[in-house]
Amino acid sequence: MRRVSGWATHSPGETVARYDFERRDLRRTDIAVDVRYCGVCASDLTAVRTRDPASPPLVPGHEIVGTVSAVGEGVSRFAVGDEVAVGNIADSCRTCPACRAGRENWCHEGVVLTYGGVDPVDGSLGQGGFSSGYVVDEHFAYPLPAELDPAGTAPLMCAGITTYVPLRRWGAAPGRKVGIVGMGGLGHLALRLAHAMGAEVVQFTTSPGKAAEARRLGAEEVVLSRDERQMAAQVGRFDLVLDTVGAPHALEPYLRSLAVDGTLCLVGVPSEDLRVPPLELITGAKTLAGAGSGGTGETQEMLDFCAAHGIAAETEVLPSHQVNTALDRLERNDVRYRFVLDMTA
Amino acid sequence: MRRVSGWATHSPGETVARYDFERRDLRRTDIAVDVRYCGVCASDLTAVRTRDPASPPLVPGHEIVGTVSAVGEGVSRFAVGDEVAVGNIADSCRTCPACRAGRENWCHEGVVLTYGGVDPVDGSLGQGGFSSGYVVDEHFAYPLPAELDPAGTAPLMCAGITTYVPLRRWGAAPGRKVGIVGMGGLGHLALRLAHAMGAEVVQFTTSPGKAAEARRLGAEEVVLSRDERQMAAQVGRFDLVLDTVGAPHALEPYLRSLAVDGTLCLVGVPSEDLRVPPLELITGAKTLAGAGSGGTGETQEMLDFCAAHGIAAETEVLPSHQVNTALDRLERNDVRYRFVLDMTA
Repeated sequence: MRRVSGWATHSPGETVARYDFERRDLRRTDIAVDVRYCGVCASDLTAVRTRDPASPPLVPGHEIVGTVSAVGEGVSRFAVGDEVAVGNIADSCRTCPACRAGRENWCHEGVVLTYGGVDPVDGSLGQGGFSSGYVVDEHFAYPLPAELDPAGTAPLMCAGITTYVPLRRWGAAPGRKVGIVGMGGLGHLALRLAHAMGAEVVQFTTSPGKAAEARRLGAEEVVLSRDERQMAAQVGRFDLVLDTVGAPHALEPYLRSLAVDGTLCLVGVPSEDLRVPPLELITGAKTLAGAGSGGTGETQEMLDFCAAHGIAAETEVLPSHQVNTALDRLERNDVRYRFVLDMTA
Repeated sequence: MRRVSGWATHSPGETVARYDFERRDLRRTDIAVDVRYCGVCASDLTAVRTRDPASPPLVPGHEIVGTVSAVGEGVSRFAVGDEVAVGNIADSCRTCPACRAGRENWCHEGVVLTYGGVDPVDGSLGQGGFSSGYVVDEHFAYPLPAELDPAGTAPLMCAGITTYVPLRRWGAAPGRKVGIVGMGGLGHLALRLAHAMGAEVVQFTTSPGKAAEARRLGAEEVVLSRDERQMAAQVGRFDLVLDTVGAPHALEPYLRSLAVDGTLCLVGVPSEDLRVPPLELITGAKTLAGAGSGGTGETQEMLDFCAAHGIAAETEVLPSHQVNTALDRLERNDVRYRFVLDMTA
């Protein structure tokens, strides 16, 4: 076992605190990673704020960048000293059709998440990347692209892949008009990705102060979503609207902004049921879709695309001991655009 | 003007009554049609039951089959004596991108419906096919396929096209598993169409008595949707589920029945907002879509497909004076599977 130090949920809850624990001994195809950076995702915030304080400590974090410190005897893709990235999937069955297609996020047996899942071999609770070290099967690690800022690469592993997959699936490409709703961790990456794919991109935001930065990141237009006049001008415009907002909000304005055959794809997870007037879908043959994460095939493709286009997240890097500050500010949407913890500081 | 006799909404409402009225003189590209058959659609029932009795009489009916009795001087596609079919679109702008693509149902100016719309030339209220004669621009008439039963062809013009378009769009084809929800006018045609497209089709119904007929029409399996055990066995199975049920109902069981990347497409129009738990869409990257009607390009393609595969609706033909019986029985779902009025009787 290898001793590591991290930040875990604890009693009385709602924050994280120092937590020392042990990682498993390396299995045949495992690698050990000295974690350098870990991004702070909205799902980490949810895990911390909603975890029952009576349950065992849980270490969040699933946007991991680090250096390989040891390898199991069967590891073929990595050597000690390699820089790697790990996302939100730590294991899967590897045999179902989804796994065989490199789409392990939809594993028929259910994936083992990077934290909070149960290891199928030893039954232990998975502990995440807010820690000094991580252990994972090499199948779920990726070479860190040398072209990209390491801290900015960490958020690609969740925010990046979660937006990349639906942008590809629903056809962000030259000649296509794409709207991005929300300009947070996911939204600002979606904007850059869609722009790099050649689409004409319009950023929807509630923050007038983000307009100039949206243009810098590739938006041809910025629409203030609380301005009814601006929203009325969007009717029938978009082939795809990617909605990254997790807070509950009305979908009708975005469904109406779609052209015939258009798609509104949700990647944020509102806490309430969606309400959709059926004629908003039927009129214009529109589509409401969901997407979440990606498998190893799509993740490697996304990293290659980002390396080729110089796309990494815009980050605020904080030393790991400021993790609760990061969580508090994320809760207030006070971040441009992703917190990344420096786990060595 | 040409005098015709039909069945219209009237005071005190909720039924139709005899109504004599005049059709316009033929414009340059108009044809006059002696109506032989007109299907009875759920939207006709809604029009009759919900029409304000104080408003002008309205003649429903938009699944029309008949014989050309006169043609305007500019008509090029039809001659007197030709058998034709007309659906739920009587006119459109003809110049917007949707119209130019043969997808007039999504005309940017809005279509002129076969009844209930306002004629852009003379401002008159459109009166539908529950009448002895109809007048329409030849652009929105189609040669009646000689291979098909004329009465059974009438419902293809709304129920047929409404299900054909999403089955094609969402990939009903060999190797694909398609579920059809509801076995009424739309559902029984969707079943036949999807089967003819080569998909493996499963029929969902609340009526145990329809199982044998569903198999005769092409279903490989029949699932009783009120049987929780049968429904639990459907999880993750379908590439496409086409939901033809207009009555409000839970969507979760059908979203859960989808495979990864699967689509639940609604063609019925529930009277209430849809409620969708967001994770039902996000988990498995699923899609909730709408569809409605089709343009001239798709309608001709659908008629050609039906002619090639011998597909027409299963009908109960009633003389037109029994129109209120047809509406009453349709309201109770007591029809296998589409009422068609014989307008000559």
